[in-house]
Amino acid sequence: MSGKVICAGLGPGDPDLMSLRAARVIGSARHIAYFRKEGRAGQARRIVEGMLHPEAVEYPMEYPVTTELPFDSPEYTDALARFYDDWANRLAALAATEDVVVLCEGDPFFYGSFMHLHSRLQGRVPVEVIPGITGMTGCWHATDTPITWGDDVLTVLMGTLPEEDLVRHMANADALVVMKTGRNLPRVRRALERVGRLDAAWLVERGTMPNQRVARLVDVDASDCPYFAIVLVHGHGRRPELPE
Amino acid sequence: MSGKVICAGLGPGDPDLMSLRAARVIGSARHIAYFRKEGRAGQARRIVEGMLHPEAVEYPMEYPVTTELPFDSPEYTDALARFYDDWANRLAALAATEDVVVLCEGDPFFYGSFMHLHSRLQGRVPVEVIPGITGMTGCWHATDTPITWGDDVLTVLMGTLPEEDLVRHMANADALVVMKTGRNLPRVRRALERVGRLDAAWLVERGTMPNQRVARLVDVDASDCPYFAIVLVHGHGRRPELPE
Repeated sequence: MSGKVICAGLGPGDPDLMSLRAARVIGSARHIAYFRKEGRAGQARRIVEGMLHPEAVEYPMEYPVTTELPFDSPEYTDALARFYDDWANRLAALAATEDVVVLCEGDPFFYGSFMHLHSRLQGRVPVEVIPGITGMTGCWHATDTPITWGDDVLTVLMGTLPEEDLVRHMANADALVVMKTGRNLPRVRRALERVGRLDAAWLVERGTMPNQRVARLVDVDASDCPYFAIVLVHGHGRRPELPE
Repeated sequence: MSGKVICAGLGPGDPDLMSLRAARVIGSARHIAYFRKEGRAGQARRIVEGMLHPEAVEYPMEYPVTTELPFDSPEYTDALARFYDDWANRLAALAATEDVVVLCEGDPFFYGSFMHLHSRLQGRVPVEVIPGITGMTGCWHATDTPITWGDDVLTVLMGTLPEEDLVRHMANADALVVMKTGRNLPRVRRALERVGRLDAAWLVERGTMPNQRVARLVDVDASDCPYFAIVLVHGHGRRPELPE
């Protein structure tokens, strides 16, 4: 008897937007693991509230250090690597005899933390990954407007990039998604202004969730830098061009 | 008594990857509309096979002309506009008394045809759009590899773009998705070669479906230009840079 590690993409936040397969796997699992910050309930766990099997055993995987050390220090990198090593070992040991389900917000293969376990589990136990609706998809639905159509070019950027890189990408793409905003939001805003796209930008928090927030970025106070917010600029439907 | 138009995102192709909400809405609908080419079953209809209510009435919305006229001619544009006008009228008439569900592959707001009805229905009847997992998400899952991590920049391109545009975008992004390949595939391949990324590119067809195909693009015969294939280049996990 042997099991596997199944990573279930949870989608953007509304439990009703989970896939049929993810919901079935989560509802029948006896072992459920999920990332969270120490002392927090964790968004992934919150999404599956009420769905778990009564006998499910939970494994909160708590990130070791998130504020004490600078995120680019060798100490931080080492602590994270040990954390992922440790959990890969524990999940592999569990999966030797039973299935274990790892929860992952959005889609696991799109900027997901699961990939650090995925790479460490290769060749040790079978791993199955269930796709999910990405968080950014939930955010453009919150604006009730298509993000792309026709031949639009879409670029997905992290707010952590230097301003010149942001400007270069923003000037070239038709539609934009900027993630990891938070304290980077003032720089994201300056970059959008420099390419003349600030007026078209939206800030979306918790898209598809009951407390979702949708605001024009120009209307957001400069001191208001929500960590999980996504900035969106919709495409306008680039007309197809004739192939050369 | 009045209804609404509900557009249900079907996800990438495997019916088990549809959202709980989409599956419930599709299974209970008495009016189901979907786009297809004349004389074809249609991929959207195929995905929901076996899920429809026994009393459901189906409305295949058949594209008027797809090969007889050049796609950039005014005649083609006019014919398509009349087609969308006509169906918007018919759906609005149905929704005056009952719900009608429109099927849409992938996510309706990501390069989806539904947006042409969505814009025409605004202010006439209530419209609800249910997000779905995008087709490209299904394709990167078919490669069993994360598409992006860390601070990767992802750019989504249409194969219809001129070669110089493709080259410029491909040189700037970490991860790439190229849609609308088909007869544009030779140009997409040349552009990838010019930026030194051809060896890292994958061709994926029907990701998540039983007959999915995953191949390295360099191994695909030059005369083989499958219309619905997507080209992917995975990111490598750009390291976060310090904010300025």
